[in-house]
Amino acid sequence: MLKWYQKQASENEIVLSSRVRLARNVADIPFNSCMTNEQRQQLNQKVTQALHNIHLGENKLHFVSLDSLNEMKRCAMVEKHIVSREFIRYPENRMLIISEDESIAIMVNEEDHLRIQVMANGLNLSEAYQICNMIDDVLDETLRYAFDETLGYLTSCPTNLGTGLRASVMMHLPALEHFGLISRLTSNISKLGMTIRGTYGEGSNVIGSLYQISNQITLGITEQDAIQNLESVTKQIIDAEVNARENLSKEKHRLEDMIFRSLGTLKYARMMSSKDFFETVSNLRLGIAMGYVDEISLITLNELMDLTGTATVCEQAGKELPPIERDYLRAKTIREKLAVE
Amino acid sequence: MLKWYQKQASENEIVLSSRVRLARNVADIPFNSCMTNEQRQQLNQKVTQALHNIHLGENKLHFVSLDSLNEMKRCAMVEKHIVSREFIRYPENRMLIISEDESIAIMVNEEDHLRIQVMANGLNLSEAYQICNMIDDVLDETLRYAFDETLGYLTSCPTNLGTGLRASVMMHLPALEHFGLISRLTSNISKLGMTIRGTYGEGSNVIGSLYQISNQITLGITEQDAIQNLESVTKQIIDAEVNARENLSKEKHRLEDMIFRSLGTLKYARMMSSKDFFETVSNLRLGIAMGYVDEISLITLNELMDLTGTATVCEQAGKELPPIERDYLRAKTIREKLAVE
Repeated sequence: MLKWYQKQASENEIVLSSRVRLARNVADIPFNSCMTNEQRQQLNQKVTQALHNIHLGENKLHFVSLDSLNEMKRCAMVEKHIVSREFIRYPENRMLIISEDESIAIMVNEEDHLRIQVMANGLNLSEAYQICNMIDDVLDETLRYAFDETLGYLTSCPTNLGTGLRASVMMHLPALEHFGLISRLTSNISKLGMTIRGTYGEGSNVIGSLYQISNQITLGITEQDAIQNLESVTKQIIDAEVNARENLSKEKHRLEDMIFRSLGTLKYARMMSSKDFFETVSNLRLGIAMGYVDEISLITLNELMDLTGTATVCEQAGKELPPIERDYLRAKTIREKLAVE
Repeated sequence: MLKWYQKQASENEIVLSSRVRLARNVADIPFNSCMTNEQRQQLNQKVTQALHNIHLGENKLHFVSLDSLNEMKRCAMVEKHIVSREFIRYPENRMLIISEDESIAIMVNEEDHLRIQVMANGLNLSEAYQICNMIDDVLDETLRYAFDETLGYLTSCPTNLGTGLRASVMMHLPALEHFGLISRLTSNISKLGMTIRGTYGEGSNVIGSLYQISNQITLGITEQDAIQNLESVTKQIIDAEVNARENLSKEKHRLEDMIFRSLGTLKYARMMSSKDFFETVSNLRLGIAMGYVDEISLITLNELMDLTGTATVCEQAGKELPPIERDYLRAKTIREKLAVE
C-alpha cells in the first residue's frame, strides 16, 4: 500500500505536506501528569475498544505498544513526523495507533490522553481535517471527552484549550529565503495568528528551506475556521514564493548550475551528511518544481526524505553507526534510489 | 591524426606530460632584441628552407605566421603550452612551425632565434629529446649556430647558455600536496639543480595539484645528462606520490566521496570556472589513477584539459565571451565530452 507521501497531490511543488492534529482528554481520568500507570493501561484498552469498529477501508490501523519498539525505531518515527519527540521520551504505557499508509497516527498517553494526527501530501488540510474529525467522532461515541461549554475541549496545556486543533503545512520556500523575505513573512503571519518554524517544529533550525506554518489560536474559533484560515494564508505564501521564483529564474545559468550540481552530488556522493542532504534535495526540489529537472519526481524526493533520516539509516543497518558510516550508508541509499528512478 | 596527448604513455597516472626544448641562435645574425624586421623575415625563410627535407612520416609540419592568427587562437596556443606567453606578445614577423600532432613546435624569432620544443604524453623525456635532437641536427646542417667551444650554445639570456636545453615534466601531486609535503620537495629538488613551478610555469599559481618540474643547469653538463637527471628525479617524486596516495587511501570513504562528487560535478554542472575545472579534474584524475573510477580514461581528461582553456572556449564560440557565458559553455563542453565516453 502506498504511504501518504507517495500519493499525488495538488500544490505539492511548494507544500510538501499538510498535518492536522486534535488534542483530546477523557473526562473521568486525571490529566497525564497525575495519572497512575494502571489508569494509563486502562486508557489504552478503552481507546483500542473504541476504535474496534472504525471503517477505514484497506488503510488498516495497527496498535503498537511504544515500549515494544527499539529506540532506533522510535527515533525514526520522530524523524518521519509520525510521533512527537515528547511522546518517545517515556515509552512506558504509551500506545501508538498507526494506519497502514502512515497518514493516521494516534498517540495515547502523550501530553494529552489523545493526540489524533492525520497527514496528507501537498496542500490537503480539508481532507486531513475530515479524517481527523471522523476519528474524533468515533472516539467520542465511547469515551466521554473533558469538555466545557465555554472553554471547549480541556487540554493539559492551556495553549491547546478550545478546539485542541493544531494544523500545519510544511512549505519549501527557497526563493523567499534567497531574497531575505522570510523575516517579513514571519512578522506578517504572526499578526494573523499563525507561526512559522523550522523543519522539526518549535526551536528547530531551518534546513533545506523547509518551513512549518501552523495556527496558534485554539480559543474562540471553530475548527473549520482555523483550517480555512491556515489554508488561505498558505495560498498567499505560495503566491509569494511563485513570484520570488520568477525573479530567481532571471539568473538562469546560476540557478540551473546550482540545481544540476545538487543532482550530480546526490547521484555521485559517497558520503552525505543530513544537512548536506537537505540542502541538495532542496535545490533539486526547486529544479523539479521549476521544470529544469524532469528525470526525477517530487514523490521520489519525498521517499528519499523518508529513507535518509539519521535514525532511519541506522535502523536500516540494524545498529547504531558512527557518523562516517552513517553518511556513507545514506549516500548509498540515495544513489540506489535515484538510479532506480 | 591523434594529438600527442591522446596517445597511451607510461607513468601517465602521475606524469601528465614531458617537454624538451632547445634554445638556438644563428651565428651571423644579432640576437632578437637587436634584429631588424628584415633580418627576422630572412630568418623565417632560412628556417623554412632548412626544414624542407625533414622526414617526420605522417606527422607533417605546418608553417604559420603568428600574425595570421587572431588573438584568441594565439592565447589558446599558450594555454595548450604550444608557445610561450612571451612569443605571442609581439606577433609580428614571428613564425611558428607546428606538427600535425602538436608534439613539435618551433618558435622562430622568440627570445632566441629558435626555440625547438617537443612534447610527449606521460614520462617520455628520452623520446622527446631524441626528436628534438634530430630536428636540431637537421637545422644545424643549414644554419650555422652561435656556438662557443667553452660556453656551448650562446643564448639571448645567460640562464640558457651551454646546452640551451630546458626539459620539464608536468606532474599531478595531490597526495603530496594533501600531506603538506610540497615545500620539502621543493627544497630537495633545488639542491639537485631542478625547480618546481605552478601549472603555467614561472610565477604561476598551482591549480589542480599540477606541478612543473624542470632542470635549471645548462652549463657544464651534457644534454643527455640533463635529461637523465630530470628523469631520475621524476621517478623519485613518482615513488613519493605513490606512497602518499597509499596513506590517503586509508581514509577510503572520504577519498571516494571527494572523487565521485567531482565526477558528479563535472557531469552535471551548468557553469564551470577554470579553477573549479582544474580542481574537480584533479580529483577525478586521482580517482582514475587509483582505480576508483573506470568509466573515464586519463586520455579523456587530457582531451578535456585541451578543450576547456579560457581562450579555447572563446575560440570555440567564435567570439570573446563574458565570464558567465564562458563558464556556461565550458560546462557544456565537459558534459558532452563525458557523455560520449
